[in-house]
Amino acid sequence: MSSTSHHMTPDEFRRWGHETVDWLARYMEEVEGLPVVSAAAPGDVRAKLPSAPPERGEPFSAVLRDLDEIIVPGLTHWQSPNFFGYFPANTSGPAALGELLSAGMNVQGMLWAASPAATELETLVMDWVAQLLGLPDGFRSGSAGGGVIQDSASSAALCALLSARERATGYAANHRGCDGTLTAYASTQVHSSVEKAVRVAGLGSDQLRLIDVDYEYALRPDLLEQAIRADEDAGLRPCYAVATVGTTSSNAVDPLREIGEICRRHGVWLHVDAAQAGTAAVCPEFRHLHDGLGLADSFCFDPHKWMFTNFDCDCFFVADREPLIRTLSILPEYLRNQASESGAVIDYRDWQIPLGRRFRALKLWMMIRHYGVEGLQFHVRRHVALAQRFADWVRDDLDFVLAAPVPLNLVCFSHRAGDAATQRVMDHVNGSGRAFISHTRLSDRLVLRVCVGQSQTEERHVKALWDLIREGAASL
Amino acid sequence: MSSTSHHMTPDEFRRWGHETVDWLARYMEEVEGLPVVSAAAPGDVRAKLPSAPPERGEPFSAVLRDLDEIIVPGLTHWQSPNFFGYFPANTSGPAALGELLSAGMNVQGMLWAASPAATELETLVMDWVAQLLGLPDGFRSGSAGGGVIQDSASSAALCALLSARERATGYAANHRGCDGTLTAYASTQVHSSVEKAVRVAGLGSDQLRLIDVDYEYALRPDLLEQAIRADEDAGLRPCYAVATVGTTSSNAVDPLREIGEICRRHGVWLHVDAAQAGTAAVCPEFRHLHDGLGLADSFCFDPHKWMFTNFDCDCFFVADREPLIRTLSILPEYLRNQASESGAVIDYRDWQIPLGRRFRALKLWMMIRHYGVEGLQFHVRRHVALAQRFADWVRDDLDFVLAAPVPLNLVCFSHRAGDAATQRVMDHVNGSGRAFISHTRLSDRLVLRVCVGQSQTEERHVKALWDLIREGAASL
Repeated sequence: MSSTSHHMTPDEFRRWGHETVDWLARYMEEVEGLPVVSAAAPGDVRAKLPSAPPERGEPFSAVLRDLDEIIVPGLTHWQSPNFFGYFPANTSGPAALGELLSAGMNVQGMLWAASPAATELETLVMDWVAQLLGLPDGFRSGSAGGGVIQDSASSAALCALLSARERATGYAANHRGCDGTLTAYASTQVHSSVEKAVRVAGLGSDQLRLIDVDYEYALRPDLLEQAIRADEDAGLRPCYAVATVGTTSSNAVDPLREIGEICRRHGVWLHVDAAQAGTAAVCPEFRHLHDGLGLADSFCFDPHKWMFTNFDCDCFFVADREPLIRTLSILPEYLRNQASESGAVIDYRDWQIPLGRRFRALKLWMMIRHYGVEGLQFHVRRHVALAQRFADWVRDDLDFVLAAPVPLNLVCFSHRAGDAATQRVMDHVNGSGRAFISHTRLSDRLVLRVCVGQSQTEERHVKALWDLIREGAASL
Repeated sequence: MSSTSHHMTPDEFRRWGHETVDWLARYMEEVEGLPVVSAAAPGDVRAKLPSAPPERGEPFSAVLRDLDEIIVPGLTHWQSPNFFGYFPANTSGPAALGELLSAGMNVQGMLWAASPAATELETLVMDWVAQLLGLPDGFRSGSAGGGVIQDSASSAALCALLSARERATGYAANHRGCDGTLTAYASTQVHSSVEKAVRVAGLGSDQLRLIDVDYEYALRPDLLEQAIRADEDAGLRPCYAVATVGTTSSNAVDPLREIGEICRRHGVWLHVDAAQAGTAAVCPEFRHLHDGLGLADSFCFDPHKWMFTNFDCDCFFVADREPLIRTLSILPEYLRNQASESGAVIDYRDWQIPLGRRFRALKLWMMIRHYGVEGLQFHVRRHVALAQRFADWVRDDLDFVLAAPVPLNLVCFSHRAGDAATQRVMDHVNGSGRAFISHTRLSDRLVLRVCVGQSQTEERHVKALWDLIREGAASL
């Protein structure tokens, strides 16, 4: 703390910035050896910290010390190569440095005029991403569509739903409110954020039809069309459907083309949620998962899951930007400016719910430039190959059974002896501190989930996990 | 780029991390001399960048070079001490380093169990913030209420509205949808995010009653109660009111106590939006602005505006956490865990719309520890004093007239000769590159806004701005 100004001066920032970078580099080197899951009990971390803010500023060294002594032991280490739970949240050096630059320059990207490069870099990088994944041309900024960075797939699903709601009501719901006649559709396996969006947007979760899935946990298009027809016959207005590429439970892939054709026939907005699995499309051999995406009205995936970019960074694309902008635009006097009025610029404020937005394109741009197409493909292929190897071990094992297909990097499996045995294996793994896996339920059976996607996960980590699982099974 | 793994290794991260920190330190030193507003025309930035992502990874040095040569000239510099537009978005070294640590460790804070320290530090720091600002005890975690970090005041207003909607309908709207009977209230000066929230939540903006203001642009409580009564008489259900402490146009302060009493009488949820001005309450002498806040159901302010914390960081408090959690909670199987089921922990996923969340408490904690109460008070007092001095200059000038009271750090004024003259003064200032101010309209008159709140703004910058404004007036 500079005693005269209380600010951290540029020289102090150099010093403490270097220390912080070194701290993180050491964390990257050492995270593999830390217990993956924190052993903290509720209240443990808080009890070690003062209950009131300090009257006088403290040296930054004291903060870094508390980080080591109090915070780190209370963390579950998502960057550990032994983290296999949930979906990954991998990050990378270039992305983290992009975030630092964004935090330091701290420009506002709400309007083009508020900092033109923030908007233009975002538009450019979203076009890069569309090329990286081989997305339909209609999602690029040169077409009627375009992309924007949202904080999460939850927010993307909500923005898509709002656009669908407005398109279906001739943009009347925004003004007159919902009237209980709009209906939405998704599979029973859809992410919980869709039900949350349907509640938030005033449709009500009773109007969300959860369509049954086939034996591979993919939405059944025949049942979707039946449900839409039944609602139409009842005088309701089907407006929104979500198809998932890589469901959260089991990475199931809904049949986009059939769903898309049904949605087109009935004038229903199709949103495709590929939050985790979407990254796979950087490799041409996995792009078949997106077959039919040209029929979708919107699409999102999360570079903050599997594409080496720290949270938050969801890439949200629309095939037609007009409904989105018309739904979310409000222009108060204090934001009016010539550039907006010329129509020659994008104001991303109108592509999202919050007004403010930070310069998130920077980290995505830096990450892509660091890895290149080649580097991203290398790691995605590697992760998928490791997961497939793990699936082979499960297939060949007498105690375990695969619980779902393994299209990419997530393996779902159970102990043949039933839920109690499966639970004990999970407890053995997670209690060891040496790895972390999570669970779900499929066909009313407890299922373990092993997702390979952390930046530093190598074959030896996957092998060690399998040994740990075998050890757990042996001790039953 | 490491040639074998494509990842940036810890050693490479040390090297490029130090370079990036040095780049930012230099930016801090030099930003004062850069044109505040970018001269970029639409498309300028994009035209300098390749239209496709690189096939092979590039060295980080190339990215930093493009940052200097292409990105920085396209930015409007919100960290310039000559930035007086909109509301400030000040940042600080400790906050930026907190964001870096958050990006590097990249833990997920959606559930307590997903990384306990992320949740517990957030709860602690929000209690610190409540103490810093002298907020009612009911907003602290030890009471029925508590605080959570949202991305923006927009999202806070939306979460408050959803809670109000559900409380008013016995938690039925979430399931059955909106029915067009719910009404909301705010002054004509309320931030546009409230109208957006009323649209998003399915009430419809026709159900938002914009209440007229007094001559100081503060909401008139008598008209509020009239409007509520008229709606009740018409069989509608008033559920939500927003009072603003420091409106975006002119920093007007709505009379919280009177509004709060009306809301209590009619069972209306009162949300108080102090997005920018809230920070002033770190100084006891400005706490009178929050008089009556104990009657509010929720409150928010943005450390990312005036409290030295980079975007995004909105502090959102509720007096009773039950309606919020009950409104926003959805628990899918794959997130079930013992800690959540014990009821002994907070899962912040249920306090916001998105599922995922990053470790934002870290930057707020580091910022507060760096400055201490004393450092924050020092800067807030300094900014207010500078704005008051500027207001004195306007008051004493023959060409200009104050357009609204100046309770804190925002000065609103016009040229006495009318809108054309005011516009030409603004163009003179903003066209010079030496300072940036923004505008609004009050009582149908064009008004210039000078807000003092950037970290490095000193008296000489405010004086130079005044000279520039006088120069513009002299050239008319």
